[in-house]
Parts: sequence; C-alpha cells; structure tokens
Amino acid sequence: MTETIKVAVLGAAGRMGATVCRAVDDADGLELVARLDAGDTVDASSLAGADVAVDFTVPAATEANVHAALDAGAHVVVGTTGWDDASRGRVTEHLERVNAGREDGLGVLIAPNFGLSAVLAMTFAAKAARYFESAEVIELHHPDKVDAPSGTARHTAAAIARARAEAGLQAMPDATESGVEARGADVDGVRVHAVRLRGLVAHEEILFGNVGEQLVIRQDSFDRASFMPGVLLAVREVVSRPGLTVGLENVLDLS
Amino acid sequence: MTETIKVAVLGAAGRMGATVCRAVDDADGLELVARLDAGDTVDASSLAGADVAVDFTVPAATEANVHAALDAGAHVVVGTTGWDDASRGRVTEHLERVNAGREDGLGVLIAPNFGLSAVLAMTFAAKAARYFESAEVIELHHPDKVDAPSGTARHTAAAIARARAEAGLQAMPDATESGVEARGADVDGVRVHAVRLRGLVAHEEILFGNVGEQLVIRQDSFDRASFMPGVLLAVREVVSRPGLTVGLENVLDLS
Amino acid sequence: MTETIKVAVLGAAGRMGATVCRAVDDADGLELVARLDAGDTVDASSLAGADVAVDFTVPAATEANVHAALDAGAHVVVGTTGWDDASRGRVTEHLERVNAGREDGLGVLIAPNFGLSAVLAMTFAAKAARYFESAEVIELHHPDKVDAPSGTARHTAAAIARARAEAGLQAMPDATESGVEARGADVDGVRVHAVRLRGLVAHEEILFGNVGEQLVIRQDSFDRASFMPGVLLAVREVVSRPGLTVGLENVLDLS
Amino acid sequence: MTETIKVAVLGAAGRMGATVCRAVDDADGLELVARLDAGDTVDASSLAGADVAVDFTVPAATEANVHAALDAGAHVVVGTTGWDDASRGRVTEHLERVNAGREDGLGVLIAPNFGLSAVLAMTFAAKAARYFESAEVIELHHPDKVDAPSGTARHTAAAIARARAEAGLQAMPDATESGVEARGADVDGVRVHAVRLRGLVAHEEILFGNVGEQLVIRQDSFDRASFMPGVLLAVREVVSRPGLTVGLENVLDLS
Repeated sequence: MTETIKVAVLGAAGRMGATVCRAVDDADGLELVARLDAGDTVDASSLAGADVAVDFTVPAATEANVHAALDAGAHVVVGTTGWDDASRGRVTEHLERVNAGREDGLGVLIAPNFGLSAVLAMTFAAKAARYFESAEVIELHHPDKVDAPSGTARHTAAAIARARAEAGLQAMPDATESGVEARGADVDGVRVHAVRLRGLVAHEEILFGNVGEQLVIRQDSFDRASFMPGVLLAVREVVSRPGLTVGLENVLDLS
Repeated sequence: MTETIKVAVLGAAGRMGATVCRAVDDADGLELVARLDAGDTVDASSLAGADVAVDFTVPAATEANVHAALDAGAHVVVGTTGWDDASRGRVTEHLERVNAGREDGLGVLIAPNFGLSAVLAMTFAAKAARYFESAEVIELHHPDKVDAPSGTARHTAAAIARARAEAGLQAMPDATESGVEARGADVDGVRVHAVRLRGLVAHEEILFGNVGEQLVIRQDSFDRASFMPGVLLAVREVVSRPGLTVGLENVLDLS
Repeated sequence: MTETIKVAVLGAAGRMGATVCRAVDDADGLELVARLDAGDTVDASSLAGADVAVDFTVPAATEANVHAALDAGAHVVVGTTGWDDASRGRVTEHLERVNAGREDGLGVLIAPNFGLSAVLAMTFAAKAARYFESAEVIELHHPDKVDAPSGTARHTAAAIARARAEAGLQAMPDATESGVEARGADVDGVRVHAVRLRGLVAHEEILFGNVGEQLVIRQDSFDRASFMPGVLLAVREVVSRPGLTVGLENVLDLS
Repeated sequence: MTETIKVAVLGAAGRMGATVCRAVDDADGLELVARLDAGDTVDASSLAGADVAVDFTVPAATEANVHAALDAGAHVVVGTTGWDDASRGRVTEHLERVNAGREDGLGVLIAPNFGLSAVLAMTFAAKAARYFESAEVIELHHPDKVDAPSGTARHTAAAIARARAEAGLQAMPDATESGVEARGADVDGVRVHAVRLRGLVAHEEILFGNVGEQLVIRQDSFDRASFMPGVLLAVREVVSRPGLTVGLENVLDLS
C-alpha cells in the first residue's frame, strides 16, 4: 500500500473513538479526514472521501452506520459489539449487491477484539489444542467486571474444545471427587477460571499439559491503547479484502 | 551444631522413608544409625542410640511411634499425616513429663509439609495479606488428584483471611453478577481456583493486588526429593527446640 | 490512630506530589492542610499546622526541606532520591537534638520505594535466600529506561547475597563454560537479567531453586498510583516512630 | 492410519532409546519389532520388517544408520544430533534415488527437538514476531548445563529476527546506556537471557510487547518422557511424507 488511506472515524467523541483518531493521526500512510458522532448523518458528504470508515459507536447505531458507509462507497472496520447472525447476514447481502461483477469490491471487517496479543493467544491456543492431553483457561480481570468468565475466555475454551473434538481426543483426565466448585466453569468440557484482582486490567492464560511438559500462552492488556495496532492493521487490510470478514485473526498472516 | 547427629528412620522401606535415608546418608553432620519398618519394635535398642527419630510411617502407627521414641530418649521429626488436637495434646503432655526440670529437653516437630518453597510461600502470603485490597489463590496439580482445592491452598487462603480480619480489612471487591461458578471455591472469603493438568506435580500461586500493582508468590514442587532440605533442616533444629513444634515455618529463621 | 493526621505536601505540583495530594484527600483519617512548591518557604506558617510533611521534591531541595519541617515541629516522610550517609547523618543529629528527653519525639521516614509489592518482594527474597541452593533476579521495564539493571534489582540481589553469606552458603552451582554473556550481570555473585519490552512499566521476578522445587516472587508496578498505599502507610506510621527510619520495610508488620 | 505400524528402535539401550521402546510398546497402532544397539548391523534382517526405524544413537553412527535403514526399505525418524547441510544433502540424494517414479516413497524425518511444547512455542513465536515492537527470550535450565544460551533459545531468537526482517520492522527500542551486560546475549538483534537454577530442567519463555499489551509464550520440559508424544507423532507421520523433512513443526497441522 503506497497510497495514503483516508479514514473517517464514527463515534469520534467516545473513549475508543478518540483514541483511534489519535492513532490514525500518528500513523504512516493514513490520513484522518472526518470525525463523526451521534447526530451526524453518515453519507458521502460527511465521510469526506474516506476510503475506510471505522465504527466505534454503540450497538443501536452500528448496523445502520455500516450500510450508510457502504452506500457512500467506503470500506468499513467495526469495533462496536452487538452483532448477530442476522445483522451480519444483511451486511453480506449488501456487499454482494455492491460488489457484483467487481474484482476489487468493498470490504467490511467486524472484530470483537482488536488486541493483537489477545487474538494471537486465542488463535495459537486453538492450533495447539489437539496436541495436548489437558487444557485449561485462566482469565484475570479488575474486580469491577460484572460477568464471568470473560467472553474472550469463553471463545478460547470453545475453540479448544472444537479442535480437540476434530482431532478425536477423549475427555481430559480429571479425578476430582470432592470440591468440584474449585474447578471453575465448564465451557464445552474445558475448565475456565476467573480471577478478579484490584490492579489488573484484562489478562488471559491458557495452559496445556502432556506427560512431562507444559505449554503456557499468556496475554496481558494493560491499556485501551493496546487495541490501536490491531485497528490500524484492520484499516490497512480491509481495503484489499472484499466481502465480510469476521475476526482480526482472519487478516493476520500466520502461515 | 558441630557434633554429628545420629538419625533413625521409621518407615524406611516406604517411598518417603527411603528418600529420607538417602538424604541423611548424603548430609554433612548427620549419620544414619537405624532403619525401622512395619513390624519392628521402636525402643532404645532398635533406635541404636539415635538422637533423632524421623517418622514417615502411616497414620495408624505414627502416634505410638512418637511416644516410644520419646521413651527411648530421642527427639522426633514427624512427616506422617493424621494428627489432630487430641493426639498432639498427648504428645505435649508426654514432653512436659520427660522434660520437667530440664533446660535442654526433648523436642517433637510435626510438619504437614516439608517443602521449603511451599512453607515459605504460605508464610509470606500470610504476612503480605494485610497490605493488599485483593488476594486469590490458584493451585495446580496433576489430574489424578481426587480432592480440590488442595490442603495447602486451603491453609493458605485461611491464613490470608485471618490476616485480613486481624488488620480490619473489608471484604474484597468483586462485582461478579453472572457466572460465579468460574470464580472458584470460597475459603473464608478468599477465592481458590484448582487447575488439573497432565504434566504438573504440585504448584501454588498466590496473587495480591492493589491499585496499579500486583504481588505474586508462586511455588513449584516438581519431585518428592524437594522435601529433603526441609526434613534435614527439621532434624538439625529439633534437637535444640524442647517441646512440641507444629509446622516447619516455626523453625525457619524469617526475622 | 483515631485523630485526624494533618498533612502538608512539598512538591505538590510535581507528578508524584499531585498524586499524593489526591490520595491524602481521599484517605480516611488524613487531611490535606498545605500544598507547597518550588519557591515556597517551608516553615510553621506555610505548613499550616501539619502533623506530617511529605516531601516529593528534587534532590537539591529535599535535605533543607526536612530540616525546615523538623524546625516547624512536623514529622517528615521523604520520597525524594539523592540521600547519602552524610545527609542521613545530619537528619539523625537534628532528630536527637529535638527529641532529647521526649518519649514521643519527631520521626523522619526516608524510603527509596513506596511500592508495597516491590518492598515486600525484596523483603521476602532476603528472608528466603538462605534456604535455597540457587537464586536469580529478572527485572523487566519499558524500553526507555537508560540504566540496567534497575536499582531495585541491584538491592534485591545484594540482599540475597548478604543473606547467603550470613548463612554460610557456598557459591551457587553454575557449569556455564560458553556464552556467559547470556547469564546477565553479576551482582555480588547473584545473576541479574534485565528485560526491556514496550508495554511494560516496572516488574521484578526473583527465582529460588532447590532440587525438585522452585519459589518465585514476582511484583508488577503498572502505574505511579501504586505508590500511594505505601505513602499513606508511611504517613500513618511516622507519627509514632521517633528518629530516622530508612526503608518502608521497617514500618511494615511482618512478624 | 488403521494398519499397525511396525517400529525398530536403533540405540535401544540408551536412555532415550529405552524410553522410546516403552512408548512404542504402549502406543495404539504401533508395534515394536526390533531393538538394535551399538554393534548390531542395520539391515533388512535385523530390522525385522519394520516400517519405520527410529534412530536415537550417536552422531558418529546416525548417518550410516539412516542409509542402511533406507536400503532395507524402512522410513526413518532421527532424534540424534550432529547433522549438517552435507549429511542432510546425502540423505536427500538417497531418497530421490529410491523414491524415483514412486508416489508413496520412503520418508526421513530429522528433528532436533521432539518436545511438542518446545516446537510449538518456537513456531508460534516466529508467527507472532512481526506483530510486536519488542521481543525477548528467556531460557531457564538446570545449573549443570555448560552452554548458554540454549540451542532452542538461539533458534527461537533467530526465527524472530528473520520474521521481523521479512516484515520490514525496525530495530527494537532500547535506551540502555549503562549496564548492558545485564541485557543478555544478542542473537541477531534479539536479546536472550539464560537462567541457571537448581530444580529446573528445560524451560523457555518468549515475551512480546506493544504499547499497552504483552504476549508471553512459555514452555516447560520437566522430563525426558515429554519427548514421546512427538516421537510417536513423527512415526505416524513419516510413513506418508516421502522425502526429507527437517523439524517436527513441519508435520504438525497448524493451519
């Protein structure tokens, strides 16, 4: 990519949006051309020629924003939560319609997590899973978090379970007879433990064991700023990936 | 201690006892003078002049062994489990009787755990507890263990809870509303998580958190051999500690 | 301490000083009565009746501030660096003069580090050192740090070396013949490794090993805010500790 | 693989060879048909119809063993060290000769490391490297090891350096001005630290950092037994991979 990519940020006044604006401003090869917020209409005029619209708004607004940006001819990167199969399906249809007959059509990338360390940890865990007899997940967060275990930990455990099933592995060994409440939550047969500790932010540790060996993959998110490399990567990749892509891991080069 | 300490091992044919015999044989300043096993009478003759009898037998035999060794004039180090307040009380009475009027009487040291790293981790955790807003315990073991959480983790959590109560600390912050089963067992208000992983032996990790900082104390027991430094330390210390001592931490110099 | 402690902050406009002001404001039982900065005279009038003056200024100003605060009848907590034996000696003399004949005299606490996790890690490491064959220190910091290894890591290694010498331990086992540059810095016979990694702040890990076991003490400082519990503890303790105290560990209750 | 694979072990009396014999004996779908040792001729008769010969002998014998086993029509898995470009080239030539015109020819797999956790850690580290500003390697071993840093750590660092170069990354940030000896060995621009601690066996930790986040990949080899899953995997895979394969990572399914 030698040409500058023009970027519009939707939700520019929010905490994530403001951080994205600064990151785009500081990045080589990217130019911030528009900051939109609640109340602003999303159209060709307000997007000001942006190649890519980055949406960090709210669940109630994100789907309409994506369709409006596509109508204005922009690729879209979405960090807002709240998407389901139905809303994703409508984006796919829209993309098929506008991209019909084009080689280099528009792309939309929806990612629940832009943290490179988090996405890589999950991806590596899924790949490693088939080679180990045991696997468990520990997630650690600040004590103000209301849900347990974290969504990232759930996804990781589910991916491990899927990989084990595909490889034909048996249930993990576990002789526990008493005190099973200390063994954490059971997510598809994978034990997930949630630690809540003042001072922490968001951390995940995945442990794999065989006779005589252990593999541990750990990731730490200390700060919201940690999402920026992933957002910038997404902006740079979405312009050459027509159609809908879900998950940052699908634009990483892990071959 | 410049003179050689003569040692008798009770339960010498068991796995721990045999390991103790080798460790005593290899240690400077200690001499192995007797190996006794099931069926052998414990008395002055069979103890062969031992200064210290080390008991790694079975719960059904250990109390009688201690009294017999005391009658034979030996100090005793006990690694066998199964002791309670009543049996410890009978040893205290016996010691008061034989030590009456003596400055340098006999000593008995009963320790549930001779692992220096485990004992130190527990001791440090208890000391640190009053200085942190949050504390949690993770214990990790091989998957053939039938109980959870481990006794060591329970003791650690209870000691943390006691230290917090003495210092007047409030309950730890924890906003969890959903998925509380991922939060582990509640031991006196301290969350304890049990991981079971093929390849591991016995490990404990204690996490403390304040705003902006974390303290982690971790100990790994990879092998039964790890108990030997603690057993040898106990043998060297018991000869100068008349009366009953419970717990290896009480003969460590942590001032 | 049931009465409110009145606190003056010297260097109140600096980053640490400003954080201390906020922390004192928020703390139960403490009242912020004065904020002083460069150019302000330190005397009874400017200290406004403060029981304790907290100095986070600069090396060139800190000694004069301490003497001025003592003259005004205030206890002092010092977080500024740059103290040596000579300047500490002059404070001791001043304290002996003003405290002569009093039971409840003034106290000065000079601490190079107010991080509870850092101070506890160092203290526990010194206590554990005599019980292990091997010990090494790994410190991890952000990559903008210009010196290696960190002062905290040096102090920790020196304390470990001192404890080993006092206990009569031999040099640690190390068969390394080639590639000794990978073995880190040698601080009094203890190997110290310095990691520099974007994303980290200030972290220390101390590893102890015996046959079959390991003890790891790790501390993480994620944020300047982590020093506040230690500063508040120092303020509360200094009022009942006449004379000079050096090091936060000496006001911790670790018995 | 539904048919049983017949296995011959060369070096069956050595420590690794004996462990392989037991592992093959215990494995589903594998049958141990021959144990050969120093002095035994390797030919069709002594290999007793083996589909796969596993060589854990000595550097002086391994190349001749591979050629003899190929002449006898067996696939070969090699865990012996001492191979270089020239000896590997001769095996490739031999394989091209015997496999000429066949779809399902013989395979040879030479692996310097059969530890799945070690191989996966190295592989994941190479994949992650391009996405982080900083990367460092810490290897930890027992104190009887004579070289530092370990071969595994060197390979890992070199792979990280290669991935960074391919992605066009700049040198890592490092402001160190004093005490550079604490910063470890420099392997192609990646810092590698070697810890030597009684109680440890063989461990590697790879740290990656970006602003606000960290990814840590750690592997522990506690025991020689940890190599067996990798050896068995190699035996099962080599029969369907004609030609020379170097490195266990090339038979893992990490897509």
